[in-house]
Amino acid sequence: MAAEVAEQPAVFDSLVARRSDVADVASLIAARRPRFALLAARGSSDHAALYAKYLIEVLLQLPAGLVSPSTTTLYDARPDLTDILYLSVSQSGGSPDLVAATEAAREQGALTVAVTNTPASPLSDAAELSVDIKAGEELAVAATKTYSATLLSLYLLVDAVRGGSGETVHGIGELAATALAEPVDEAVSRFRAVERVVTTGRGYSSATAAEAALKLAETSYLGARAYSGADLLHGPVAAIDADTGVVAVTSRGRGGAAMRDVLATVGERGPSVLAVGSAASDMPADLRIAVPETAEEVAPILEILPLQRLALGLALARGGDPDNPRGLSKVTRTL
Amino acid sequence: MAAEVAEQPAVFDSLVARRSDVADVASLIAARRPRFALLAARGSSDHAALYAKYLIEVLLQLPAGLVSPSTTTLYDARPDLTDILYLSVSQSGGSPDLVAATEAAREQGALTVAVTNTPASPLSDAAELSVDIKAGEELAVAATKTYSATLLSLYLLVDAVRGGSGETVHGIGELAATALAEPVDEAVSRFRAVERVVTTGRGYSSATAAEAALKLAETSYLGARAYSGADLLHGPVAAIDADTGVVAVTSRGRGGAAMRDVLATVGERGPSVLAVGSAASDMPADLRIAVPETAEEVAPILEILPLQRLALGLALARGGDPDNPRGLSKVTRTL
Repeated sequence: MAAEVAEQPAVFDSLVARRSDVADVASLIAARRPRFALLAARGSSDHAALYAKYLIEVLLQLPAGLVSPSTTTLYDARPDLTDILYLSVSQSGGSPDLVAATEAAREQGALTVAVTNTPASPLSDAAELSVDIKAGEELAVAATKTYSATLLSLYLLVDAVRGGSGETVHGIGELAATALAEPVDEAVSRFRAVERVVTTGRGYSSATAAEAALKLAETSYLGARAYSGADLLHGPVAAIDADTGVVAVTSRGRGGAAMRDVLATVGERGPSVLAVGSAASDMPADLRIAVPETAEEVAPILEILPLQRLALGLALARGGDPDNPRGLSKVTRTL
Repeated sequence: MAAEVAEQPAVFDSLVARRSDVADVASLIAARRPRFALLAARGSSDHAALYAKYLIEVLLQLPAGLVSPSTTTLYDARPDLTDILYLSVSQSGGSPDLVAATEAAREQGALTVAVTNTPASPLSDAAELSVDIKAGEELAVAATKTYSATLLSLYLLVDAVRGGSGETVHGIGELAATALAEPVDEAVSRFRAVERVVTTGRGYSSATAAEAALKLAETSYLGARAYSGADLLHGPVAAIDADTGVVAVTSRGRGGAAMRDVLATVGERGPSVLAVGSAASDMPADLRIAVPETAEEVAPILEILPLQRLALGLALARGGDPDNPRGLSKVTRTL
């Protein structure tokens, strides 16, 4: 896991260098002029899909929704999907329910696009178009480089659909190296003893909060739960106390700005608050991990990096083996 | 909270008796022949929206997605929403971000429908059509009768859009009374001592799992986290151990059937497993709470009832005050 975390700057550089592959798929999508987007995924990929939903709604001005593959696979729903862009995200490309849902979407008239790290996979075969996230083989059970490479691929794809040239992510490999060099030891010592973790973010960063919670839960077995900064004050804030660690993902931009008041309210309950992101220094927090500033829409690609290192550090500090989390295997075969 | 929990059978009866009010709104929706549905909500209402998403996809065969109000309120996204049914769900009808997102959706051409317990609310004013869930005033901070009345209203609405006559929920008040009479004491004693709770369900019941986790977190301050039965094996299962309480929502039908293997895998990790629902007796579990059998698509209306009583019982057993959860107020003003 540590080795794969460290590979991410190089993975980003090579993805940006091969941007034209994604741009080719993007032109085919743009030519079909979809009116709506649906996104299907599970696990970490579902958090990448959440990121893509914001990209599509904000940058392409298309309504987008996250799909439950089970309406198709369990209940045989067969809606008319004409004019719909159906993006299926899976690093392995092997989840049977996602493959079945993608096949059904294609039959129902959607433009289906698989985003995967395994170009020769059942998912790529099922979809009409396919984007290769080019992260190289991932051996650790906890997805790290495939998650961030999926985000970057989705950004490049959406940016190219709107006619962009990928300028916003120029130099992202170097920024990633900076983000990975940020020390996380103090956060590890502080969070080692907490009883539960709540992660939170708003806007684009809500994807990072969701992925960070999963990473902490699957490697450190911490009871970690993500809430959108907006939802947090609707109930879940009651469960936050002095034994809670709060990870607030706060990058410069509108999502981060909206977190300041949320954190002020949360902070009154006495938890240990760790702010992570380019706006961390502006936040009421006990600890901060800085991340280089970028355009807000690409911040999630960097925000997750120190949080992967936090999960890894906590797993080791708590005596776990992050490379072999109990009860997990690399490809989960949901039917 | 206890009084409002007990009112639910009567609320259901009066909603079914006034079905024609919902049917009038449904005919207006059907006449517009929407092609897609978007659902906007926060907190408990977001779980009701998740239920509606399944209803719309399976019963109406329309693609449906959950919306983040923040793409509109934070990022000013203004997608073309022609042909879209936009359902905004909020018991108070007062969340400013939901009102703003609904106003924007209406301006962008969507058919907007507010589903609320407050017919004279900013949300009802913002939307073109409005459904009153008629639950009566709710004083407890934790939503109980407004949640279940929202589910029943959404079912009646979707059923009427497809030309149904509400037969499936005939007698639901009496079934609710039976579900509420089921003892929960043993579950309270068993779950009192757990360190964390994972709730899980598939298909329609994933909404119940999400709502049960929120109810436990906000009244008992338990670290409670919901996972779809499908997502649970993608990572989160690693955090389940002998100190975990697992609440599995399993009703007869395809969603419940898909849970049996998930629970077998989860059970190997040694948690206390409580199965709740009409299929509870078929599940590998330590404890079971039965719920009367209904059509699978209406099961969530009943499944949540004993789980509200579990949340209430746990809050009292753990020395909390379920009527005044710390840090919460009835209307959360997210901007």
